[in-house]
Amino acid sequence: MKAKWVAAGLAMAIGGGHALGAFAQAKPETLIRQRQAVMTLHGKYFFPLVALSQGKLTYDAGIAARNAGFLEALSQMPWDGFTPDTQAEKSRALPAIYANPSKFKAAQDNYRGAVGKLVGASKNEAAFKAATGDVLKACNACHDDFRGR
Amino acid sequence: MKAKWVAAGLAMAIGGGHALGAFAQAKPETLIRQRQAVMTLHGKYFFPLVALSQGKLTYDAGIAARNAGFLEALSQMPWDGFTPDTQAEKSRALPAIYANPSKFKAAQDNYRGAVGKLVGASKNEAAFKAATGDVLKACNACHDDFRGR
Repeated sequence: MKAKWVAAGLAMAIGGGHALGAFAQAKPETLIRQRQAVMTLHGKYFFPLVALSQGKLTYDAGIAARNAGFLEALSQMPWDGFTPDTQAEKSRALPAIYANPSKFKAAQDNYRGAVGKLVGASKNEAAFKAATGDVLKACNACHDDFRGR
Repeated sequence: MKAKWVAAGLAMAIGGGHALGAFAQAKPETLIRQRQAVMTLHGKYFFPLVALSQGKLTYDAGIAARNAGFLEALSQMPWDGFTPDTQAEKSRALPAIYANPSKFKAAQDNYRGAVGKLVGASKNEAAFKAATGDVLKACNACHDDFRGR
């Protein structure tokens, strides 16, 4: 069982190639599952921050810093999963991702920048509230252009 | 659409309560989806490290450090999703998790410790290989005791 688990993972990681670039050769359905997993975890760690920023939960600098740190890692993870060969699979990703890659990249950079500021702001309640609002705007801006319903 | 997205997330985050502890009141199926998402992402970032450590991919200190850093964040994420009310849902989580919580906690700590050492070792190839082997052992030890097939 152990050997099978590792072997399956290696096949996934190595794909058909032999170099680091081959990471992108994972199957399209695997890439979609992985990027959707990142979005699921954004929900887990971002929505409580929205609740904190809106006063629906009591502000807690420790929770804010922890979740912001997790978001910083998560905010780097989805993008390499948006490869052209995933377009044939069912997902909410819109064709605009592939039609306008530089705009998609700019939306990613905008989002990552907002998360970076949130990390720096998480220990000050007023700064945290403003930064959370900016992250939410960056989420929505990208979803509006690149995610279907 | 934006408002709906945020509202759904807030309901998930806040659950039936009003305090931070209410994070654990997300629905069992949500908790399972979140913890499975973490495991999916472990696959994305850990299996390439196994391939690097086995020489199946050329060692790259930058990739090793990046993936180890992501694993450090991921290694903290699954555990609060193993709440007793998730036992009624279909998953591979074994009853031993709830029958022997201190042993499950020890397995988590063992795993997180191994990942912490990997983060420190990722820039030295020999140390990285040893540390990756230790992480794999920690994965398997926990899966053997607490994950079904």
